[in-house]
Amino acid sequence: MNVETLAVGTELLLGQIVNTNAAAIAVRLADSGMTHVRQTVVGDNATRMQDAIREAVGRCDALVITGGIGPTQDDITREAVAAVAGVPLFFDEAYARDMRVLWERRGREFPESNLRQAYRPEGAVAIPNPKGSAPGFRIEVDGCWILALPGVPAEMLAMLDDDVMPFLVSMTGDDASIVVSRVIKSWGMSEAAVGELLSDLFEGSENPTVAFLASAGVIKVRLTARASTQEAAHSLIAPLETEVRRRLGDHIFGVDDDTIEGIIHALLLERRWTIATAESATVGMVASRLTSVAGSSATFRGSIGAYASDIKTSLLYVPEDLMRTKGIVSQDTALAMARGVRRRLGADVGVAVTGSAGPEPLEVEAGTMCVAVVTPDGERARTFTMPGDRERVRTYTATAALHQTRLALMGS
Amino acid sequence: MNVETLAVGTELLLGQIVNTNAAAIAVRLADSGMTHVRQTVVGDNATRMQDAIREAVGRCDALVITGGIGPTQDDITREAVAAVAGVPLFFDEAYARDMRVLWERRGREFPESNLRQAYRPEGAVAIPNPKGSAPGFRIEVDGCWILALPGVPAEMLAMLDDDVMPFLVSMTGDDASIVVSRVIKSWGMSEAAVGELLSDLFEGSENPTVAFLASAGVIKVRLTARASTQEAAHSLIAPLETEVRRRLGDHIFGVDDDTIEGIIHALLLERRWTIATAESATVGMVASRLTSVAGSSATFRGSIGAYASDIKTSLLYVPEDLMRTKGIVSQDTALAMARGVRRRLGADVGVAVTGSAGPEPLEVEAGTMCVAVVTPDGERARTFTMPGDRERVRTYTATAALHQTRLALMGS
Repeated sequence: MNVETLAVGTELLLGQIVNTNAAAIAVRLADSGMTHVRQTVVGDNATRMQDAIREAVGRCDALVITGGIGPTQDDITREAVAAVAGVPLFFDEAYARDMRVLWERRGREFPESNLRQAYRPEGAVAIPNPKGSAPGFRIEVDGCWILALPGVPAEMLAMLDDDVMPFLVSMTGDDASIVVSRVIKSWGMSEAAVGELLSDLFEGSENPTVAFLASAGVIKVRLTARASTQEAAHSLIAPLETEVRRRLGDHIFGVDDDTIEGIIHALLLERRWTIATAESATVGMVASRLTSVAGSSATFRGSIGAYASDIKTSLLYVPEDLMRTKGIVSQDTALAMARGVRRRLGADVGVAVTGSAGPEPLEVEAGTMCVAVVTPDGERARTFTMPGDRERVRTYTATAALHQTRLALMGS
Repeated sequence: MNVETLAVGTELLLGQIVNTNAAAIAVRLADSGMTHVRQTVVGDNATRMQDAIREAVGRCDALVITGGIGPTQDDITREAVAAVAGVPLFFDEAYARDMRVLWERRGREFPESNLRQAYRPEGAVAIPNPKGSAPGFRIEVDGCWILALPGVPAEMLAMLDDDVMPFLVSMTGDDASIVVSRVIKSWGMSEAAVGELLSDLFEGSENPTVAFLASAGVIKVRLTARASTQEAAHSLIAPLETEVRRRLGDHIFGVDDDTIEGIIHALLLERRWTIATAESATVGMVASRLTSVAGSSATFRGSIGAYASDIKTSLLYVPEDLMRTKGIVSQDTALAMARGVRRRLGADVGVAVTGSAGPEPLEVEAGTMCVAVVTPDGERARTFTMPGDRERVRTYTATAALHQTRLALMGS
C-alpha cells in the first residue's frame, strides 16, 4: 500500500515548528510494511491545500493529513477534503451535543466557534480523539483513503495508534507485509569506501534494500526487508548481514541502538576493568562521552584535561624531555599520557589524546591528532589527520579515541 | 518570490531522521520576505524525484533541494535535476583534481566513487561546500531556479547562508529586500517567563517581528526588520532592542553569534586570569565547552574529572569528612572542589560541578546539581534541580556552570 502524508500549517512553512509528526507516522508505516512515498507540507491556504490533496489522491492508496481540524478560521482541512471529494459538509448533531455537555460539566462556557469541529465531509466516518476535542475523519475519494488527524502530536499519535494504523493494516488485506530493519554501524572507513565495498549488494537491491547513513565519522548500513512474517523478514536480512559483516570486518562496532560508549562500558564490565582519560586537544570530550552511559561510575574513574603542558608533566608524569624531543603532539607523548593517567587515577585502562585542533597550528599542522590507549594487555597509538574546523576536528577525534579504545579492549 | 523545498532521502520517509533542514530553510525564507509555499520529501527513487522536481518547477520561482548529492549510488539528485532540465551531466575536471590532491595530502587512498561528486547538470553553477566534499549547484529550469544542497545540516546551513540566500535575495529585486536580524540571548528565565515579559512587544508585530527560540536553557529573542537599506533596518530594530534589554536586564549575556564560552574567554583575557574545572556529574562537559574557543590555551589551564570520590580527595583536596557530613552533592563539596582545582592546576578561577545526573539517585534526587565558582575576588555556589533524562541534566548543568562563571567574573 502506497501512503503519503500531508501536514497543514503555516507555522511549519515559517520554520516555527519542525514536522515531527511526519517522522512518527513514517516509523509506523515502515513497521507495518507500507510504502511511504511522499511527505508534503502546505500552509493554511485553501487552494494550495486542495491542490496537494488532489495530487496525492491521484498517486497513492492512502493519504494521512495532520493539522487543520481545530476550531479556528484557519483550520481548513474539513473544507478542503470536502471540495476534493465533491461533497458538502455534514453537521454532526450528536457530537455537538456531547461537546456542549462536556464543557458544561467542566463548568466552562462553551465557545460557539468549537462547533466548527462538529462538521466533516458528508460520507466521512469520524475518528474519535481521546486526548482532545477535535475529532478526525476518514473518507474514500477516487480509490484513495483520506485520513484527517489533528496537528497536536499527542492527539495525532493516540488516534494514529488506536484507529488509523489498524484501519490501514486491515485495508491491505492478507498481503499485509512486515518490515524489519537492521542497522549495522561501522567506523574507520569513509562513506564512499563503504559504498564501494558494498556496491554490488546495493545495485538493484529491492528486498532487502541497502542504504547508507553517515554521521560524525560513523557510517551506518541499513538493511530493510519486507515479508509476511517477522521470521521471513529476518531470514531475508540474515545472509545479507553476514555478507556485510564479512566485508566490513573489524570496522563494524555495533548494530541498531548500540553506541560506542555503551559497547566500551560493556567490554570494561566484562573484563572488570576501570578506565580514565587524559586529554589535551579534546579536553573533556572523551570523558563526557564515556560518562554519558547510565551506570558508568562502575567503570569510569576520572579524567585529566591537561591543556597546559606543565600539567602533562605534573599530573601525568610525562617527561619534559620526551615532549621536547618527540613533540607534544606525538604518539610517544600520547602513550606517556595514557600510562600516566592510569597510574595517577588508579585505572586499568588509560586513553589519551594530544593534538593540534586549530585553527592555528601547534607544533604540527592543525588537524593532526594522536590517540593512545593503554590496557593491562598492551598499548596502541595512532595518528589521525582530521579535516574541518576546530569543533569538527575535536568531535571526530573524540570519536576516533573511543573506537581505538574498543579495538584495544578487544585486543585487535 | 514563491519558494519550495524538496528533501530527498528514504531515511526521512522511514522516519529514521526528522526533516530539520526544512525548518532551518523556512526561517531564512521568512526573514527574507519570501513566500515558502510547500515542502516535499521523497525517497531515493529516480522517477518519484523527477516527478516532484517537475511539479515544483511548474509551480514556483525557486526550489531548494536538500540531500542526494553525496558519493554513493543512492545519491541521485544530480541525475534527477539533469533529467528534468533535459541536459546531460558535466564532469568538473578541476574539482576532481582538487579532491584527489586533498585526499593525498591526508595520506588516504582516494575512493573512485567520490568522483560522482564532480558531476553536475550541464549549465549548472557549482555552490562551494566549505564544510564537506560534496559541492552543491544551481541551475535555472523553465524560469525556476533549482538549488541543490547536501542533506548534512551543518554543510547545508553554511551553503544556505553563504550562497543560496544572498543569491535568492538578489533575484527578488525587492525594494525592502534587506533583512537584518538581531538575536538577544538570555539565560536564567524560562521561555514562558521571557514571553510574558515581552508579550506586548510581540503582539501584532510585523516589522520588526519578534520571535522566541529556546535551546538548552538559553532563550533567544530574535528581532527581524526588513527595509531597503541596512541603516533603515537597523534603526527599526534599535528601539525595540533597547526595550528588550531594559526588561531582561542581567539575564542577557550576549547577542547574535556570541557564545557563553567566548564571553568567558574574553572576560578572562581582560582580567589576565586563567581558569580550571573540577567536574563530577558533568565530567568534561564544562571543560570541553571552555576549550571550544580558538585560542583558549591563553586562559584555560586544565580540568580534573573527579568521578570516583577518592579522586576528589586525592587530586582536589576535598576532605573526606566534608563529603561525609555535608554530602558529595552539596554546595560545600562543590566549593571545596573549585578551591582544590585552582590550587592543583595553578589557575586563578576554579569552576566545579557535583551532582546526581541520574537515572538512579546518588545521595540526593536525580537532577540535583551543585555548581561553585571561585575567583580571586570571591566565591559563589548554587544548587539547581534539573528536569529530564541524564543527558539533558548534564547538558543543562554544564550550561548553568558557564553562566555562573560569567556572573562570578562580572562580580554580580
